[in-house]
Amino acid sequence: MVLPVTLSGAQFIGPEVSRDAPAEFSAFAPATGKALEPAFAEASAREVDAAMALADRAFPALYATSGTRRAELLEAIADEITALGDALIERAGAETGLPAARLSGERGRTVSQLKLLASTVREGSWVNARIDRADPARQPLPKPDVRSMLRPLGPVVVFAASNFPLAFSVAGGDTAAALAAGNPVVVKAHAAHPGTSELVAGAIQRAVRRCNFPDGTFSMLQSAGYEVGVQLVRHPLTKAVAFTGSLAGGRALFDAAVTRPEPIPVFAEMGSQNPLIVLPGAIAARGADLAAGLHTSLTMGVGQFCTNPGLILVLAGAATEGFVTALGERVASTPAGTMLAPRIAEGYRQGVGKASAIKGVSVVAQGSAGDGCTGTATLLRTTAATFLAAPELAHEIFGPCGLVVECADMAELERVVATLGGQLTATLHATDEELQKSPRLFELLERRVGRVIVGGFPTGVEVCHAMHHGGPYPATTDSRFTSVGTGALLRFARPVCYQGVSDALLPEELRNGNPRHILRLVDGNYTREAF
Amino acid sequence: MVLPVTLSGAQFIGPEVSRDAPAEFSAFAPATGKALEPAFAEASAREVDAAMALADRAFPALYATSGTRRAELLEAIADEITALGDALIERAGAETGLPAARLSGERGRTVSQLKLLASTVREGSWVNARIDRADPARQPLPKPDVRSMLRPLGPVVVFAASNFPLAFSVAGGDTAAALAAGNPVVVKAHAAHPGTSELVAGAIQRAVRRCNFPDGTFSMLQSAGYEVGVQLVRHPLTKAVAFTGSLAGGRALFDAAVTRPEPIPVFAEMGSQNPLIVLPGAIAARGADLAAGLHTSLTMGVGQFCTNPGLILVLAGAATEGFVTALGERVASTPAGTMLAPRIAEGYRQGVGKASAIKGVSVVAQGSAGDGCTGTATLLRTTAATFLAAPELAHEIFGPCGLVVECADMAELERVVATLGGQLTATLHATDEELQKSPRLFELLERRVGRVIVGGFPTGVEVCHAMHHGGPYPATTDSRFTSVGTGALLRFARPVCYQGVSDALLPEELRNGNPRHILRLVDGNYTREAF
Repeated sequence: MVLPVTLSGAQFIGPEVSRDAPAEFSAFAPATGKALEPAFAEASAREVDAAMALADRAFPALYATSGTRRAELLEAIADEITALGDALIERAGAETGLPAARLSGERGRTVSQLKLLASTVREGSWVNARIDRADPARQPLPKPDVRSMLRPLGPVVVFAASNFPLAFSVAGGDTAAALAAGNPVVVKAHAAHPGTSELVAGAIQRAVRRCNFPDGTFSMLQSAGYEVGVQLVRHPLTKAVAFTGSLAGGRALFDAAVTRPEPIPVFAEMGSQNPLIVLPGAIAARGADLAAGLHTSLTMGVGQFCTNPGLILVLAGAATEGFVTALGERVASTPAGTMLAPRIAEGYRQGVGKASAIKGVSVVAQGSAGDGCTGTATLLRTTAATFLAAPELAHEIFGPCGLVVECADMAELERVVATLGGQLTATLHATDEELQKSPRLFELLERRVGRVIVGGFPTGVEVCHAMHHGGPYPATTDSRFTSVGTGALLRFARPVCYQGVSDALLPEELRNGNPRHILRLVDGNYTREAF
Repeated sequence: MVLPVTLSGAQFIGPEVSRDAPAEFSAFAPATGKALEPAFAEASAREVDAAMALADRAFPALYATSGTRRAELLEAIADEITALGDALIERAGAETGLPAARLSGERGRTVSQLKLLASTVREGSWVNARIDRADPARQPLPKPDVRSMLRPLGPVVVFAASNFPLAFSVAGGDTAAALAAGNPVVVKAHAAHPGTSELVAGAIQRAVRRCNFPDGTFSMLQSAGYEVGVQLVRHPLTKAVAFTGSLAGGRALFDAAVTRPEPIPVFAEMGSQNPLIVLPGAIAARGADLAAGLHTSLTMGVGQFCTNPGLILVLAGAATEGFVTALGERVASTPAGTMLAPRIAEGYRQGVGKASAIKGVSVVAQGSAGDGCTGTATLLRTTAATFLAAPELAHEIFGPCGLVVECADMAELERVVATLGGQLTATLHATDEELQKSPRLFELLERRVGRVIVGGFPTGVEVCHAMHHGGPYPATTDSRFTSVGTGALLRFARPVCYQGVSDALLPEELRNGNPRHILRLVDGNYTREAF
């Protein structure tokens, strides 16, 4: 397959392309089962070091950039990505098997999240500027002038995700947030879409040049193995890590980071089962819509979303039986879908096989089976007793598989919820009356998750100020931070405090005059006023 | 020595006192060298588990408390501590050797930081409430209603510090912040002041009861060993840890926390050398004041502050010689001071001994020597070349010891700064002209520290909104958070997001009506308005 773009297959170390190592790997087209041209070079240890050193050299200049300048860079990246046109969608489609419509939509999301972060750092209040003015007359000691705001951390390593080849890959949410906060970024590209990655890296490079940012603002390394990633995480110049992927992968990087001589933060978003509770009253009120909506959420993108609702908790009864039957019918009529990579398809097959082999678990329905790198939609069913006795049923199966867990009553359902580990989301479909009768349920859910949804579905994560895409471990390695929305900026910044520092040396955001009129906490009062 | 209070020497597990283990330890009066009555019981593994289980049971009720209720609790604790009167100061004085005036001041700080956090959570805007309202008409997909705010984490384990027996001990900044954010607290008391700890724990218990908070809101365990601390950190119900102390101690707890099946955050404040730079222009302008101020900062509290300025960077020259001589004269006339504990005094003696034995390091001056548990003020001196060649000189010596490092010129001084690890503070004494000539210096400093001070001294950390008492590793294990000031609240909370949730189920802070008029980010605009 020849595409109308030229790919180097090399590393991007700032503006330079580099190709040290003889080792190579190829992208694989999941829809055809064939390898794609060209071959991509594995990054060498020297290239890892060169990328990190260049990032470190760029940091002082980036540290000093204003929010306005950073906004310009993000917007230029968005424009350059748009300018890649169909070539990007075609290459991404070939490498991931995702349809063009989905990829166009994802490109739109990638561009709009760059622009949302640009508008946030241009406005500027996100830096949490705080000023406590001096009081030389205070007794027993004079009060000093103390000011603080968020400043960038230093070089950030971003691991691209396979399931969002644009929106959580080279120029995805993590890269956008790290750059927006003023940090250089070194991306470890995902081996499942190296060509897509190279196209986007080129777009970022052009934007860096156009906006006169330093060379080391952005680099990207290719690798199909684990070693390059671990080298990046353990590199002494790396100051933070962002990752989206599996629990095993995220935990390995976390372990590598926290055992460094200087531990660094790792923001690993590792997915979850995303429990969805459907109570009889909601089924009575809108059972058909619920079955349709849940089926869509479960099978969209061949279930390859970290917010895929893999665990469906219900109460025993006639209404529930009708709902499960309707959902099963929809699952049974689902065509097989091309999955992102053979390893993912194989992992999905094994996960479904293991879960359905557990005594007490039955297969309600399965969709069509396909050849090669495909996934078959599956609805499994068990009882709360079996679920509670088989801890392996509480592990995510990445793909279009839902496990219905039938609970005898609300007390048993609450017991199941109370055993769940940290989750990205929990979803509740219930009538107001049902919720009032079980006041503990909502609180049990929210204490375990990053986002609780009532009456909707967890997929389709809105990119906005209030979004929190995170959650207690094992959903993520740090429940205090989000990887989606403008809060994502906060991962890549730390407060720095200035005591007795004159206006000339202070960052603009902390000067008396407040030239950008940002919101600040001055002597305990929020204000946009200068003084 | 008999004090006018009765101490049980037992564990405080919620409102119960408990004394499982036969093992005991005693407090030691550093001023007299004698053990103090009574004997304190070592907490048992069962007591650790009982305290954590009780904290966990209290969590749902604490989770649901309003900021107003939490403020009442903090203020009640402050009142109960004040009501302990002279008995508290006497016991603390006996156990720590600190003078009554210092302890009264520290009690004032303890009370005022409780009240400052109370006022912050009563006002309520700290929860970072964000609301993005629904737009059902949006194309291609309807926009959901998404809201988020900070919620408490769960049971927090607080390790009391030895050097602030009130302000960073049982009811110190960490406990106050964790409770203010809605978390139950289990304190591991410091073995150097167990009686002071018991008095304060009793005050907290009375406040918990008076305010009708659940039993598990607060517990305190006594131990003179390491095992109880590790058990607390590794307990599955523990959700976060706060610690102030040595690098070795903090790192050990961090390692224990991040290797758990479920890793948890550790906020360890481990101190630093707090470099202080004095340039010739500043010496010319106010050399005598600088020598006096630096001597006070270096020796106050017998140098037992984490912000003690242990590293003094100067430029070679006649003005500097005069300054060092003046500083040395003040150090030489410093009386020996009682240190907090024999282990600290011994560590200080060894640290000074090791540093002064390094070839190229000379002793400029030493104050009077004392018997027993005392520390002798010491001023050491070396060159940048020796400092750069001897990495052990870059380690904190906890006590009243300053090391003057003479640099040939600004380039060499900047090289020294560039080798420094993370620091709580850096301080700069220079004229505007000197600063303008070395624009890189300020930026080099601020990138390494939590707080940069111009023209002042690092000791005497102001408790206010803008304070950041933290810094890159090894100053702390998490540079993004402060342990002093109202920002300390942010350590013990995580965002929770609510999508499509009706007013009745939402926390008050996220309801349309905004009854407390907190500042919220609504559709991207900060406002206190309801809607």
